[in-house]
Amino acid sequence: MPSKTAKKAKPTKKSAPPKKAKAKPAKAVATVTRRAVTRIEPALGIPLPKKQADIPGFKERESFPIPKQGDKLIYFFCDGKAEGAGKMKDLLGGKGAGLAEMTNSGVPVPPGFTITTDACFLFYRTNMVMPRWFEEDMRKFMGRLEKATGMGFGDRKNPLLVSVRSGAKFSMPGMMDTILNLGLNDETVQGLIEKTENDRFAYDSYRRFIQMYGNVVLGIDKGEFEHRLEERKKKQRIKLDTELTVNDLKNIIQKYKDLIQDKTGESFPQDPFEQLRQARDAVFKSWNNPRAITYRQLHDIPSNLGTAVNIQAMVFGNMGETSATGVGFTRNPSTGKKEFYGEYLTNAQGEDVVAGIRTPKHISHLAKEMPKVYKQLKEITERLEKHYRDVQDFEFTIQEGRLYLLQTRTGKRTTAAAVKIAVDMVGEGLIKKNEALMRVEPAQLDQLLHPQIDPKAEVHIIAHGLAASPGAASGMAVFTAEDAVRFAEAGKAVILVRQETNPDDISGMNAAQGILTSRGGMTSHAAVVARGMGKCCVAGVEDIRVYEVDKKMIAGSHVVKEGDIITLNGSTGEVMLGKVDTIPPVLSGEFATFMKWADEVRRLRVRTNADTPQDAHQAVVFGAEGIGLCRTEHMFFAPDRIPIVQEMILASDEVARRDALDRLLPFQKDDFKGIFEAMDGRPVTIRTIDPPLHEFLPDKKQIEQEIEELKEKDAWEDEIKAKEKILDRIEDLKEFNPMLGHRGCRLGVTFPEITEMQARAIFIAACEVARGKKAKPPVVEVMIPLVGHVNELKNQREIVVRVAEEVMKKYKVEIQYMVGTMIEVPRGAITADEVAGEAEFFSFGTNDLTQMTFGFSRDDAAKFLRPYLTKGILEKDPFVTLDTKGVGQLITMAIERGRGARADLKVGICGEHGGDPASIHFCNAVGMNYVSASPFRVPIARLAAAQAVLGKTEYTQK
Amino acid sequence: MPSKTAKKAKPTKKSAPPKKAKAKPAKAVATVTRRAVTRIEPALGIPLPKKQADIPGFKERESFPIPKQGDKLIYFFCDGKAEGAGKMKDLLGGKGAGLAEMTNSGVPVPPGFTITTDACFLFYRTNMVMPRWFEEDMRKFMGRLEKATGMGFGDRKNPLLVSVRSGAKFSMPGMMDTILNLGLNDETVQGLIEKTENDRFAYDSYRRFIQMYGNVVLGIDKGEFEHRLEERKKKQRIKLDTELTVNDLKNIIQKYKDLIQDKTGESFPQDPFEQLRQARDAVFKSWNNPRAITYRQLHDIPSNLGTAVNIQAMVFGNMGETSATGVGFTRNPSTGKKEFYGEYLTNAQGEDVVAGIRTPKHISHLAKEMPKVYKQLKEITERLEKHYRDVQDFEFTIQEGRLYLLQTRTGKRTTAAAVKIAVDMVGEGLIKKNEALMRVEPAQLDQLLHPQIDPKAEVHIIAHGLAASPGAASGMAVFTAEDAVRFAEAGKAVILVRQETNPDDISGMNAAQGILTSRGGMTSHAAVVARGMGKCCVAGVEDIRVYEVDKKMIAGSHVVKEGDIITLNGSTGEVMLGKVDTIPPVLSGEFATFMKWADEVRRLRVRTNADTPQDAHQAVVFGAEGIGLCRTEHMFFAPDRIPIVQEMILASDEVARRDALDRLLPFQKDDFKGIFEAMDGRPVTIRTIDPPLHEFLPDKKQIEQEIEELKEKDAWEDEIKAKEKILDRIEDLKEFNPMLGHRGCRLGVTFPEITEMQARAIFIAACEVARGKKAKPPVVEVMIPLVGHVNELKNQREIVVRVAEEVMKKYKVEIQYMVGTMIEVPRGAITADEVAGEAEFFSFGTNDLTQMTFGFSRDDAAKFLRPYLTKGILEKDPFVTLDTKGVGQLITMAIERGRGARADLKVGICGEHGGDPASIHFCNAVGMNYVSASPFRVPIARLAAAQAVLGKTEYTQK
Repeated sequence: MPSKTAKKAKPTKKSAPPKKAKAKPAKAVATVTRRAVTRIEPALGIPLPKKQADIPGFKERESFPIPKQGDKLIYFFCDGKAEGAGKMKDLLGGKGAGLAEMTNSGVPVPPGFTITTDACFLFYRTNMVMPRWFEEDMRKFMGRLEKATGMGFGDRKNPLLVSVRSGAKFSMPGMMDTILNLGLNDETVQGLIEKTENDRFAYDSYRRFIQMYGNVVLGIDKGEFEHRLEERKKKQRIKLDTELTVNDLKNIIQKYKDLIQDKTGESFPQDPFEQLRQARDAVFKSWNNPRAITYRQLHDIPSNLGTAVNIQAMVFGNMGETSATGVGFTRNPSTGKKEFYGEYLTNAQGEDVVAGIRTPKHISHLAKEMPKVYKQLKEITERLEKHYRDVQDFEFTIQEGRLYLLQTRTGKRTTAAAVKIAVDMVGEGLIKKNEALMRVEPAQLDQLLHPQIDPKAEVHIIAHGLAASPGAASGMAVFTAEDAVRFAEAGKAVILVRQETNPDDISGMNAAQGILTSRGGMTSHAAVVARGMGKCCVAGVEDIRVYEVDKKMIAGSHVVKEGDIITLNGSTGEVMLGKVDTIPPVLSGEFATFMKWADEVRRLRVRTNADTPQDAHQAVVFGAEGIGLCRTEHMFFAPDRIPIVQEMILASDEVARRDALDRLLPFQKDDFKGIFEAMDGRPVTIRTIDPPLHEFLPDKKQIEQEIEELKEKDAWEDEIKAKEKILDRIEDLKEFNPMLGHRGCRLGVTFPEITEMQARAIFIAACEVARGKKAKPPVVEVMIPLVGHVNELKNQREIVVRVAEEVMKKYKVEIQYMVGTMIEVPRGAITADEVAGEAEFFSFGTNDLTQMTFGFSRDDAAKFLRPYLTKGILEKDPFVTLDTKGVGQLITMAIERGRGARADLKVGICGEHGGDPASIHFCNAVGMNYVSASPFRVPIARLAAAQAVLGKTEYTQK
Repeated sequence: MPSKTAKKAKPTKKSAPPKKAKAKPAKAVATVTRRAVTRIEPALGIPLPKKQADIPGFKERESFPIPKQGDKLIYFFCDGKAEGAGKMKDLLGGKGAGLAEMTNSGVPVPPGFTITTDACFLFYRTNMVMPRWFEEDMRKFMGRLEKATGMGFGDRKNPLLVSVRSGAKFSMPGMMDTILNLGLNDETVQGLIEKTENDRFAYDSYRRFIQMYGNVVLGIDKGEFEHRLEERKKKQRIKLDTELTVNDLKNIIQKYKDLIQDKTGESFPQDPFEQLRQARDAVFKSWNNPRAITYRQLHDIPSNLGTAVNIQAMVFGNMGETSATGVGFTRNPSTGKKEFYGEYLTNAQGEDVVAGIRTPKHISHLAKEMPKVYKQLKEITERLEKHYRDVQDFEFTIQEGRLYLLQTRTGKRTTAAAVKIAVDMVGEGLIKKNEALMRVEPAQLDQLLHPQIDPKAEVHIIAHGLAASPGAASGMAVFTAEDAVRFAEAGKAVILVRQETNPDDISGMNAAQGILTSRGGMTSHAAVVARGMGKCCVAGVEDIRVYEVDKKMIAGSHVVKEGDIITLNGSTGEVMLGKVDTIPPVLSGEFATFMKWADEVRRLRVRTNADTPQDAHQAVVFGAEGIGLCRTEHMFFAPDRIPIVQEMILASDEVARRDALDRLLPFQKDDFKGIFEAMDGRPVTIRTIDPPLHEFLPDKKQIEQEIEELKEKDAWEDEIKAKEKILDRIEDLKEFNPMLGHRGCRLGVTFPEITEMQARAIFIAACEVARGKKAKPPVVEVMIPLVGHVNELKNQREIVVRVAEEVMKKYKVEIQYMVGTMIEVPRGAITADEVAGEAEFFSFGTNDLTQMTFGFSRDDAAKFLRPYLTKGILEKDPFVTLDTKGVGQLITMAIERGRGARADLKVGICGEHGGDPASIHFCNAVGMNYVSASPFRVPIARLAAAQAVLGKTEYTQK
């Protein structure tokens, strides 16, 4: 009986190829859909765009001429000859171009025609009613298709049935379900019975067609159809759809028709052309359905491209034992191994595979069952792989011994497979090294570096948040940093659960396996620090409530208390109950080869943001060539130091402050020594103190409580007074907008002794390492943060240089060092010519620069950033991908002006964007010397930097 | 007996001329000093610059060649012939140039010489030790002076005594006290006795000289000398210095010498040249004493100018009845009236005037006593006035019938006098109108517009703060906005005292006569709003503690409780106990004439920032040509509206929100009608809602307390729940950095219905006014705040335009309107070309633009801004005067790009800088169309705009 491939599984394959291979498609579909919905459900009751005018980006196309009569808007393909070509993706969409190319290269493809994206544009420009002349055009093409197939569209005896599929330039699983068997009606169903000699199949196909049409084209809830089907099954006391008789099906068909009449006020269209027109328009409209919009946002696809519509004759794999249907890959998409990979079912249609009633056979069986067809299939797909020079993911149907390829496309693959395939193909001479480098999405490399949830594991998901830092982790939930440290020291694996984290929590985060927060975005403290530590993190899980004092969290009906085991998947944002098995990362030989190639190509140097010797070491393993940002203040939070830091802050005068600083010095020095040794002669950029001092003081409420307790205990007056002093200082240091407050070099200017101590620690450490034998002499770059005026830098630079010279003289060692600044305040960028007079290097702190250029506090932006993305006011989250138009102009200006004043100015980036591939392209284009990324993003940065040189285009689809 | 004029009164005359006229100099001196000290005493224990390298700006001069032997570094003047000239202020300082000019124009001036500012530079470049060749040079000049006077420096018989005075390019009262009678020693004092025949005078002069020298040159505390003087007086049981006998004086002289020996380890130098060298170096060093640095900062004087040193022969007004000493003005400096004004004493020295023992005589008496000298003095000073074309402030001494002018300079005057004199001088043909316009500091006009502390009043100052909004006010202290309203309604004059104010306090501020805050700077909420309201405000009084809950404040030992009367002087920042009399402002006919001239000259339009019809009306009276910023949200705080606003914020969905908004609409409409009517056809720029929503909700603690109370009262569950809902929402809306949070157009984008309501209110109001007869049809400019991306504006613009068209159609009225934006986010400026595509006007919100460009939160900046100014990292407070180098570049860029995209783009400024004269010059230079200032700054802006056209130079000294 006739059929087509597993259409329902489509979205799966496009979005999550490795899982597909594991045959868990239904679940994956659900995940994608659910997440999409989460993303677009506006928190503040904002309606989704409904009118064309609201469609982000669509108006840009307004300047294009509107297609008119006589323009070619439809392209035919049939029997080795297509009007279109593979390169016409803009016009024909990915699918249409693929069909044209396959047809032209002699691949047996069912004939059909493609309605272009220009036609889609015409549709939107003519108020969603296609002009008459277009309808006539389309009829002519249908005539050609009838002629090619020898069948008639709507012919009672020999009906031509077609599939209708959307097809944009880039594959968009979220867009529209395919409609199959279009052309069936009360009359043509009889023709199908005659042709297949299977009335049950024919009626079931008709039923399915009406359901699909009703749902996809007419927008009637799928549940309404399912409900009627279930009712019938209940009545007949049967469980499986396959148990339905022809009579049952006829009854259901009538119910379906009634439903349509009821919901739309019109009857189900019997005219095949009416069906076709409506289906086509539904495809056009699907370009702007919420899922499609969300998908585009998630995948950076412009919204003004429009979609093409593919109309193709149906072929049937269920016309007897010489018919079959299947899917395959030219290589294993999960491992990358070179093997013909796939599965099929004889005398079957796609649904049968999905329904899981019959177990599909491995493709190798086909060699025995239909050796000629198998040979042809292998030959064609191998040819396709060579032709497209990449792994092909294909669908085929064999109709009475004749092979049809229904689709072929670049096969999605796991990152591990992508790397192996790329390296193998270079070995096979199929592609060049440079091309291989383009075959892997840099961001995907992350997958290889962190432990992952075992895809075979059973999971119980209780909440979803932002996939803030990849990897997976299980452990007992704890709700304070102290508990995290305590339990970790007792040998427990812990997950730190907080509303949000702050620098106080660093030790706890360090002790934890993973971090879960209910507030904050992708660049929240938790997210940034976790990525820096290479620790798994799920952030901003808005559907849980965290009660830190009560040590519990509530997710829906689940209460997770301290000690309960939970698992995080930082790559998907899932929070799971219990322990879920993970698999450790293994870096293959191909990975090493691949990264070596990337290093050969790239121009940008890649450094890392690391605050500890451990991080530094990890980053070197991942290929870091230096440290671009070492945040000294993180060192202040260690338990043996924080009391001294607090003493310093509470000091009433410079003498007392210096006394505390003197005691901090040995700690800082040791930290720097460790880092210098780990970096073994690679340059290390150390930033002087940056955060506002209040971050080093305990929580106000805690102190208040302590005072209460002391008072109750009748403690010594002095003890209480000491606490009250802290409280006073906390009050003193309170700021309305700490982001724009007393921090960065402003601290160094008002408390020069802090800068002095830090400089001393840095240079003593450097001298000691240089004199020791453990590592190559350090190369030091001292970086002054938050400079907006050259005088700030001048002031701080003088201190650093004075101390450096003094220490080097004392140690009789010459250390290679520079003093430079972070450019993170707009004014610093604008006056870069002046600033460069005092700076030997610039490092763009794009986190803060983005905050100040947009006037967005990243800790508070979630509330409006989400609607901004939904409404298309912003195309991308500027904290994830650099805003090249705004922030980027400041960067360009700063580099030009800076190098104008100092030709050899070294320029880098140390904001989060330094690990973002798109932003790295920008950094390469504007002539930076290096990017700096957290250790686990170093490989990503290396690859992105290589791709930037190779001129990777903005949008890539694998 | 010989003497000189009232030297001790010097600083007074320079800083506060009108008071001097009232003969209360000592007090004024104290005030200046005290204030200077307050300013520089660093809050955080920051040491003042001690080394040359730390001197702000001084290094800039490094590129100048260092003077070398043979260069002319000393300029002689004597008997109608000076080597220097009046225009050589850079080199000779103001005083030295004046002496040269006077000498050259035949004014009888005691001969002497001026050591140039180049020599000062040399001094700093040679490690503060003048080279030998210079010392030799100086000896030669002293030789010339000896020759000119016929006396010998150190000559026992006929000793030449000199005065040593600093003299920078700009008068700097804070710099150094003058040293008189230098050249006296144990021997020459005998010569003086012989010459004056007054041994008591001679010894007293010697005593004073040692004291001055010890204090000013050797840095010994003045108190140490006074102490020894007092001891002697005690011992002799006398009260007045004048009662000291020659013996007493000799005894004291010995004690002084011992003191010097004791403190410095060296004896008081008997060598006159040693005295001279040391005094000269002390003058050089005084350029960088804290008072001088502070004075420069306060008066925008660059720190790299250096000072000259003037050495001039002493003349004596106490050599008998034909000798005298006095001071005078060519016109009355207090009223501006044209009258020869001054006072003198015969046979007296300056000290006698100050000591108040003898009452000085009015200058007119001199006509009788010494008619020839009087005539000569009048003639010379009239000539000087004509020569300098401005009022002269002169000092003279008559030595045995011979007149010497010791100094003449432009006379300081009150603003009222300045205006009258300028207008009169035009009438007299002395100066041109344009020149007259340059004779008044725009900022000083403020003095004329507010009530002022009666200068005759006795005051008890308890604290000093920032002079945040000028004028004076007395009233009972209240500590909450509610109390302010309550007592004001009961007819009390109140002063609202707060730690800081927020929009919640608006009603209270409105009800108060003046506002006092312990926190916040010149652009804090309190300061800005107070200036806007034209209300007196003293802000950031750090030495008081405000206890809002306890309703009291503590200033030193004073506790001010609710109800206690205090007085504020918003023009000086003084806080006084009790009620102090004030005098109301009276605007003279000269003022009107003067402002008319300004209007004829200026190119910039001047608008006002006004939120109420009252403010709008006041501004029109002051000459406003439109409203540049009408903040709609201030209207939300009125007691009848705030509950509805809160309802809107608490609404759980759009429907509920719209319902609340519908009820707000009539209020907003009425507000706008009032403003449109007050402006009578002048353009009105209305800004849509800007502040974060949490500002409209009550204080968290208050709600928590209310809940507690309700629980205790066993109130209804629902009542408690309603409060808890508010609490939840407050928690929801809490932001880390509200400045960069969910506000401005971000609110309008997420809640389009708010923008819609506001647009509706605006246009209904406009239509109703247009149809009415009360005022000319309104010209409306709707301004969208905080735009960083063109799409934000586009989104909001569409709403405004849609509503406008709809309303106008309904009312059948055509309103002239525009939609534009505030440029206050750096990204808005950078992408101004794009933004201008959607904006018909730009208005620079320079408050926020400065905050974001610098990354300074103005509410938190005090902590580092003060040290920044002290350390010379910033020259000026960027919140007061526009930072042209940084923020200014963004503005220039935005105007260029904006006009590039839209040639007729209207451009203005509505930040606080719109009322700052220096910033107005910038606005004029970059081609803005208008500036907008608070009502009381409108006249200032008008004058500054005129001066900008006339090309006023950056620094002016009156």
